[in-house]
Amino acid sequence: MRTFSFAGGETGEWRIERIAAVTGESLPAAPRLRILQGPDAAGTAAWCLRGITSNERYVNRGEKGALVAVQPALGRPEARHAALIPIRKSSAWWALPQDERRAIFEEQSSHIATGLEYLPAVARRLHHCRDLATDEPFDFLTWFEYAPQDVTAFEKLVARLRSSPEWSFVDREVDVRLIRT
Amino acid sequence: MRTFSFAGGETGEWRIERIAAVTGESLPAAPRLRILQGPDAAGTAAWCLRGITSNERYVNRGEKGALVAVQPALGRPEARHAALIPIRKSSAWWALPQDERRAIFEEQSSHIATGLEYLPAVARRLHHCRDLATDEPFDFLTWFEYAPQDVTAFEKLVARLRSSPEWSFVDREVDVRLIRT
Repeated sequence: MRTFSFAGGETGEWRIERIAAVTGESLPAAPRLRILQGPDAAGTAAWCLRGITSNERYVNRGEKGALVAVQPALGRPEARHAALIPIRKSSAWWALPQDERRAIFEEQSSHIATGLEYLPAVARRLHHCRDLATDEPFDFLTWFEYAPQDVTAFEKLVARLRSSPEWSFVDREVDVRLIRT
Repeated sequence: MRTFSFAGGETGEWRIERIAAVTGESLPAAPRLRILQGPDAAGTAAWCLRGITSNERYVNRGEKGALVAVQPALGRPEARHAALIPIRKSSAWWALPQDERRAIFEEQSSHIATGLEYLPAVARRLHHCRDLATDEPFDFLTWFEYAPQDVTAFEKLVARLRSSPEWSFVDREVDVRLIRT
């Protein structure tokens, strides 16, 4: 099962430090986040976002090799900071053919190259929501884990991506920051 | 809602003429097919396959323009023949980076160029199953509609695609043929 549920509520290993709306509507406040494997909605959660890990959509062979060589696993003991960043892209983005989405993603926005600069400090897992059977509020849920000494670097990574041409197609984005307890 | 369910059973607008296993396990016999919009499983069906329409994964701008210019809509009165072809691709396929999947799909296998030769005779809708929240038996459900005089052309299209390099990555395929009643 490649499906993960992120439930904001009273319980969970992660304490929510802040929830900020970057673009569009925010998410309701919640003190904790629980991550569950599987599509089950957490009954008592304030909110529950679901996504599924999948094949990569844009990386080429060389980029994949470079990523695999340096990307760390989730769950490192020192990586007590995390960010859950749910994103939705506009219908204009989804109407673009593959070659134009790729060109915006990497040749214009250096999404992969920028991310590579922050490896192996930042561990990451991408979840897709757009093609779940149900209508979901976001297209992607990105989950990041990093150590306290990499907080500043992570802020820089996020700021660089948000200032890229690709981000002009983001029509909803929420930024949830967390500490493992 | 972009989700469609294909239910094989006692009811439905389409009479099933034959069900053939091309690669791997077949589907149970059923006299009729019902197509429903939405993810609801048909309670009494012998089988029910679900999929979701999505953005294109391989076509470039030029190919998209060529397709849009000639592809017909579903539901033409004369298109009384149909094929439902569910397909699963191997884990080796899904592990390939985007550029290599694209190269096999089009530069090596001419999937788009071959399909274009059979337009506007054959109408088509592709449904994705791989990224539904639940584990599905196929990755894609392809639905085709064509008129009686195009039956031979459609057989040729299917045979050409099955002999392409791309098809060496298909590890399950069932071919369901139908007539509108």
